[in-house]
Amino acid sequence: MKTNEGNFFEDFRLGQKLVHATPRTLTAGDATLYTALYGSRFALQSADAFAQALGFPRAPLDDLLVFHTVFGKTVPDISLNAVANLGYAEGRFLKPVYAGTTLSAVSEVIGLKENSNRKTGVVYVRTEGFDEAGDKVLSYVRWVMVNKRDEAAEVGEAEMPKLMSAVPASALHVPAADFARFDAAASGSIHTWEDYEKGEKIDHVDGMTVEEAEHMMATRLYQNTAKVHFNQYTEGKGRFGRRLIYGGHVISLARALSFNGLANALSIVAINGGRHVNPLFAGDTVFAWSQVLDKAQVEGRKDCGALRLRLIATKNRPCFDHPDKDGDGKYPADVILDFDYWAVLPRRA
Amino acid sequence: MKTNEGNFFEDFRLGQKLVHATPRTLTAGDATLYTALYGSRFALQSADAFAQALGFPRAPLDDLLVFHTVFGKTVPDISLNAVANLGYAEGRFLKPVYAGTTLSAVSEVIGLKENSNRKTGVVYVRTEGFDEAGDKVLSYVRWVMVNKRDEAAEVGEAEMPKLMSAVPASALHVPAADFARFDAAASGSIHTWEDYEKGEKIDHVDGMTVEEAEHMMATRLYQNTAKVHFNQYTEGKGRFGRRLIYGGHVISLARALSFNGLANALSIVAINGGRHVNPLFAGDTVFAWSQVLDKAQVEGRKDCGALRLRLIATKNRPCFDHPDKDGDGKYPADVILDFDYWAVLPRRA
Amino acid sequence: MKTNEGNFFEDFRLGQKLVHATPRTLTAGDATLYTALYGSRFALQSADAFAQALGFPRAPLDDLLVFHTVFGKTVPDISLNAVANLGYAEGRFLKPVYAGTTLSAVSEVIGLKENSNRKTGVVYVRTEGFDEAGDKVLSYVRWVMVNKRDEAAEVGEAEMPKLMSAVPASALHVPAADFARFDAAASGSIHTWEDYEKGEKIDHVDGMTVEEAEHMMATRLYQNTAKVHFNQYTEGKGRFGRRLIYGGHVISLARALSFNGLANALSIVAINGGRHVNPLFAGDTVFAWSQVLDKAQVEGRKDCGALRLRLIATKNRPCFDHPDKDGDGKYPADVILDFDYWAVLPRRA
Repeated sequence: MKTNEGNFFEDFRLGQKLVHATPRTLTAGDATLYTALYGSRFALQSADAFAQALGFPRAPLDDLLVFHTVFGKTVPDISLNAVANLGYAEGRFLKPVYAGTTLSAVSEVIGLKENSNRKTGVVYVRTEGFDEAGDKVLSYVRWVMVNKRDEAAEVGEAEMPKLMSAVPASALHVPAADFARFDAAASGSIHTWEDYEKGEKIDHVDGMTVEEAEHMMATRLYQNTAKVHFNQYTEGKGRFGRRLIYGGHVISLARALSFNGLANALSIVAINGGRHVNPLFAGDTVFAWSQVLDKAQVEGRKDCGALRLRLIATKNRPCFDHPDKDGDGKYPADVILDFDYWAVLPRRA
Repeated sequence: MKTNEGNFFEDFRLGQKLVHATPRTLTAGDATLYTALYGSRFALQSADAFAQALGFPRAPLDDLLVFHTVFGKTVPDISLNAVANLGYAEGRFLKPVYAGTTLSAVSEVIGLKENSNRKTGVVYVRTEGFDEAGDKVLSYVRWVMVNKRDEAAEVGEAEMPKLMSAVPASALHVPAADFARFDAAASGSIHTWEDYEKGEKIDHVDGMTVEEAEHMMATRLYQNTAKVHFNQYTEGKGRFGRRLIYGGHVISLARALSFNGLANALSIVAINGGRHVNPLFAGDTVFAWSQVLDKAQVEGRKDCGALRLRLIATKNRPCFDHPDKDGDGKYPADVILDFDYWAVLPRRA
Repeated sequence: MKTNEGNFFEDFRLGQKLVHATPRTLTAGDATLYTALYGSRFALQSADAFAQALGFPRAPLDDLLVFHTVFGKTVPDISLNAVANLGYAEGRFLKPVYAGTTLSAVSEVIGLKENSNRKTGVVYVRTEGFDEAGDKVLSYVRWVMVNKRDEAAEVGEAEMPKLMSAVPASALHVPAADFARFDAAASGSIHTWEDYEKGEKIDHVDGMTVEEAEHMMATRLYQNTAKVHFNQYTEGKGRFGRRLIYGGHVISLARALSFNGLANALSIVAINGGRHVNPLFAGDTVFAWSQVLDKAQVEGRKDCGALRLRLIATKNRPCFDHPDKDGDGKYPADVILDFDYWAVLPRRA
């Protein structure tokens, strides 16, 4: 077989290393297209001059562009036969990535658990993204429900990784820079780390409608080959009758919307978790709100602090009333994302 | 409030300076996407080799890409609560902009006039765009009808700026270059400044249909946050039931179409005025025609001359009969743009 | 007339040279957008680091991006009044093209044959693409059926060029590199030139649905001005009632799909022929399969070999059964492309 049929659940082995195909050089072109797809306005990623004032050599690429690119590489090996992407954990951004960097990705299988129906199992992988110098730029865990090729296939005993519920503040890699030198007029907000309170909820107000051409261009940009996003011939006969939008597209849309209220959350430094609660389809309008889960100082740094943020996205439902799961942990049908991350904000000089 | 609700009419003060957020570094990626969105074929912006033959260091970015980028920055402060964008005046391009330039924008309120219904008022601003060296690259005036937050709010007396009906030819900044060295085969036309007559009308023949994904990608590329372009959930309940296409998208489409008849109108050097006469929606097909309003020599230059051009765009109506306003100054419903600008063309060597 | 009405059949003369307008500098932005439009994953064009390991200075631009750009330049002079694009032959890629290169194009009329109805004729041109140093990067022949302006116009005797049915392996220009140094994990396949057999058929499995915004953005990126792709107002009244998708868009989609089974077909070095058998429209899903027509060693090279491949694309029909023309040479209605090219693959070290 010269074509890739992807791995099925029984193909994975604990400790297995998967070196993923197609390294990719990200360029200024990717930064442009990312802006055009999401309308992100964070000043650090938007302007060389702003970044240089903080001590960066130039504007780094958006953290989520790096994430999606590394993620995309893993799809042909990890999730081509996936039923669902179940979660993320222990995501850390370890080095700013600039235009010109070639990214590659390697995953290790760190957990396997067959489901009781014996038709599927859950695969846990830790994926690491590297630049062309071999430096690690990103590390994260995800788990995904994968079909078995053969229901009858025997598999090993369940092994579940022990995962942190959140990256501890002490483990955050914050880019070497002087965030306190930020220009509040340029960044779009005077609100610094000090101004946010634990528990605070922020409605990001704006809504963004998604088109088929947009999410497919984005997902191809990341060289993510998951079939459900691209093939209306097949999906039209499937469960939803529609192409399903890549969950990462939702994260990027919600993050871009969060500028309105979190303009100084300049860098994402960790992903603590994330769930794609309901599917998104073309024609839907995405809204978002955030909640401050925690605040932390950054070790050795007086120029910036970290906020642990929960970013909730909805479809076709404004977020002034902060739509959330109910007492039983059940989400309303119009909530599509519950994402937990650490961001870095300037402190007052 | 950490989210931006924008300024309402009573928030503006005469002489007020607004430093706009999110400086943006334009790159080769922006030039590419601009080409893909409009299909512009002007040789000066398309090819380094063509530009260098004229004495430019390399191909400058499209003048309208610069305009839209600067304009986009002003939206969160000036027109988030706008009812209508009423006009432009005194627009001058002052310095060619190349890939790698970081643009920022500052506006000054130069006029304020409450409407008699007391619900809205007209705000006049002069906006200036700067590069990272602080050099001014663009200056223009626009006026916009803005809602009042509170109808009862008292506002000052009307102050209206005195605006020129057109930028005088003597005030045009024409890039230092030798346009006479242009290659007519490469530019696509042998017609130079001498060949155009005052009053001449040119049908640009071709039509271009617009899709939702295209105008939204363009408008996000400019980081223009006006809600009416993006949010079908809200707009679907609104006046048109549709997302409204950014007026600047129409200007760029019409300018790209104008290549067919004005291939040597290589640079836009001034915007004398412009009105978005009727709205454009996805699915509509844009056509355009031009009229030569004036011809002028450029001071100290024998290599080029200036044409003052009126660019009229229509929707779903070819322009062989030059659709125009009637004797009462009323436009047909299918005319969408009436734009008045100065362009520079080569003279015969 | 300042607008271009294009050439009609009686305007062409044997031996006539047409220097095409609008040279274009391709950049990293074009490479990005190409990836976003097609999702191509060939490692050589995707990553500088992969290309450098083989001895390239950096990742070359996709061969088909170069082809479409050169092709696009010829449209205003050759095929603005075309009824149909009939075929390609003798296409050879002569020099890798990198971001920063300015491409221009020149065509020579090498054949003319009026049709018996006297309303149309077939024009054969050899088109050559050049970089800014004047080096030839691409040469190919295409023929196209063009309307006559005036049925009664007298034209010369038919002259038909003698065209090769395929570029001989000895005439292939293969980039100077050491393909044997390729990294199979990075390229996505362990299968080298040795592993493919003459006659072998490969179903590329995946399908890709096309949207209006995508094919129009692609076709404008190539500055291809053929009206049928862009103008729904006119096309809505025409034969198909729809915008017709540029045939080159289909070639690029099928080539990108062919990664799944031909991941190491790293460079296209020749186009032997190609027919757009049926039209493609937005909303259709493209599938593809390939057949190995021939295998050839590359003169003086032990690091790589050439495969002559037939790439067949369909719409709304998976290719597990290799849909093909019947015994009478008639294609099923869902086959849209039959393309014949030479690709270079690594040999085992």
